[in-house]
Amino acid sequence: MAAAWHKKYVIRRAISTQILMSPQSLVSLDLPEIWTAAADNLRPPTSLNCSNEQDAVVIDGKLIAEDIRSTIATEVRRMKESIGKVPGLAVILVGQRRDSQTYVRNKIKACEEAGIKSLFHELPEDCPEDAVLSVSSFNEDPTIHGILVQLPLPQHLDEVKILNALSLEKDVDGFHPMNMGNLAMRGREPLFIPCTPKGCIELLFRFGVEIMGKNAVVIGRSNVVGLPTSLLLQRYHATVSVVHALTNNPEEITSEADIVVTAAGVPNLVRSNWLKPGAVVIDVGTCPIEDPSSEFGYRLVGDVCYEEAVKVASAITPVPGGVGPMTIAMLLTLLILPSGHMNLFDH
Amino acid sequence: MAAAWHKKYVIRRAISTQILMSPQSLVSLDLPEIWTAAADNLRPPTSLNCSNEQDAVVIDGKLIAEDIRSTIATEVRRMKESIGKVPGLAVILVGQRRDSQTYVRNKIKACEEAGIKSLFHELPEDCPEDAVLSVSSFNEDPTIHGILVQLPLPQHLDEVKILNALSLEKDVDGFHPMNMGNLAMRGREPLFIPCTPKGCIELLFRFGVEIMGKNAVVIGRSNVVGLPTSLLLQRYHATVSVVHALTNNPEEITSEADIVVTAAGVPNLVRSNWLKPGAVVIDVGTCPIEDPSSEFGYRLVGDVCYEEAVKVASAITPVPGGVGPMTIAMLLTLLILPSGHMNLFDH
Repeated sequence: MAAAWHKKYVIRRAISTQILMSPQSLVSLDLPEIWTAAADNLRPPTSLNCSNEQDAVVIDGKLIAEDIRSTIATEVRRMKESIGKVPGLAVILVGQRRDSQTYVRNKIKACEEAGIKSLFHELPEDCPEDAVLSVSSFNEDPTIHGILVQLPLPQHLDEVKILNALSLEKDVDGFHPMNMGNLAMRGREPLFIPCTPKGCIELLFRFGVEIMGKNAVVIGRSNVVGLPTSLLLQRYHATVSVVHALTNNPEEITSEADIVVTAAGVPNLVRSNWLKPGAVVIDVGTCPIEDPSSEFGYRLVGDVCYEEAVKVASAITPVPGGVGPMTIAMLLTLLILPSGHMNLFDH
Repeated sequence: MAAAWHKKYVIRRAISTQILMSPQSLVSLDLPEIWTAAADNLRPPTSLNCSNEQDAVVIDGKLIAEDIRSTIATEVRRMKESIGKVPGLAVILVGQRRDSQTYVRNKIKACEEAGIKSLFHELPEDCPEDAVLSVSSFNEDPTIHGILVQLPLPQHLDEVKILNALSLEKDVDGFHPMNMGNLAMRGREPLFIPCTPKGCIELLFRFGVEIMGKNAVVIGRSNVVGLPTSLLLQRYHATVSVVHALTNNPEEITSEADIVVTAAGVPNLVRSNWLKPGAVVIDVGTCPIEDPSSEFGYRLVGDVCYEEAVKVASAITPVPGGVGPMTIAMLLTLLILPSGHMNLFDH
């Protein structure tokens, strides 16, 4: 038993080392001396200290996410060969929301491609709460390492009660208040860091953006993105301001930020006058807007007026193809390192 | 049993109403429409929208704390007469730190004066961890409604482990990550809000300072003060920036704040050029500095250079006599309303 545990641990360490100590690595919290990536580790090898003399570097989240997913697929194969097991994810979807269906489908597809086991548990829109609560049976399933209840849930269901029913050790979304408290508090370590904030930070690191001491503005304060992103940036020693719908002078505050992460869900909210020249802009917003010229009759836009921002920022994520793909890649990294925090804390 | 519970509930409601619906009331979270105190409810009846043409209003925390403590004493008497019970606090002190001894003594004295039962559990500096962990026996003691482990603990003790051993329902300090997560997350409610941040907010409300939409800067990000204060201000819809030791331009950021709460523990850190004219300044810092002319050879100073700030701010807390007394008064309010959150959420 002890030997098996040791073997598993060694494998996890190997994965951790391979994924994380690579030049594009996720980096440790509370280790400021390794936060500034060396110039030759940057990818792409572009200085972000430019002003508005040239267009911003486009942060290609899709490319980075593919790289991460490919690395994970290799590691899952190695894991299977070594210990005959693979990580498992249970995904619960209640109802027929089209956007939720798309998200869930993408997550399951990503698991399949990486060789990760996925269980899809679909429930009808009007199902009783007890039926949703019964998914807590996955808590005891040793082949399942993460449980994901796709939000939002239908109105008649108690989201807090349902999320509380999930084992903290399998709360791969990291939305449990205990996880959030541990993310917020110094000297504590969360088991899981929510995927989207994690993806944002990973993009910053991959592009050699120093966080410590920088002024960061997070626009939006949702439990899913804004809040954990602000806590995570603060954990990396940024000076964080949180701008929201009741902020009186959002453009003024945002225009002093070196790093802007926006998750307001308001198309084209952030115009060029909101941005300091040379700022790094991470756009989490993903809003469908009508577009008859598009194949599906709509296209996705972010919170940032991209055409304007690209002239002012030093680096910017596009929508789509920026943060979105990173969210799924981060979900996979959490599954391959079931203890979750290891990949951020363990080197 | 049900009748007894009902009676207790009614009493709690009565207390809640008396303390909280008074003109100087604590106000509800997530109820922005009652955040702006009507002018005739202000105490003192002074407009805080002044500029630096006149000195700041001095926010007399001592006076307000005495008022709160007196109200609580009355309610404890009523509670005793009605149900024959009083709230109980267990205070655990490990070691001989003089400052901790003073804090503990003050808390116990305040309990006594209010008619609240207090149990003082003193342990030697070198006591084993198990001895400290045994205080978790208070978790099952029905006469104890709050357990307080005075921090910091001696180095050899695992603070996280010891605090985790306390029942969440009796974690009157509110330092449990679950409590902190619930404080941070929208749609969740913490059982207890840490006393010092609660005292800061109470002072703002008593002086009719609107929080919603205002720019607030919190200086310092400790788990005990800075973090929960920033989360609480955000909960009241301020736009919050957290400034800390690694912030590059703290004076620049702070000088744009309508509300400054400083808890850095650095004497005279905040000079007049850090403050916007008319800002409201809450100084949590309490540092002893040598002063041969003082009775004890030292005096307490805050983070703010008071003499300068009083010329710029519209209102300011002195040190001592500002936030300090409020911390203890807030501790008592938590004990008289054992469910803790009621006094902030339940009206």
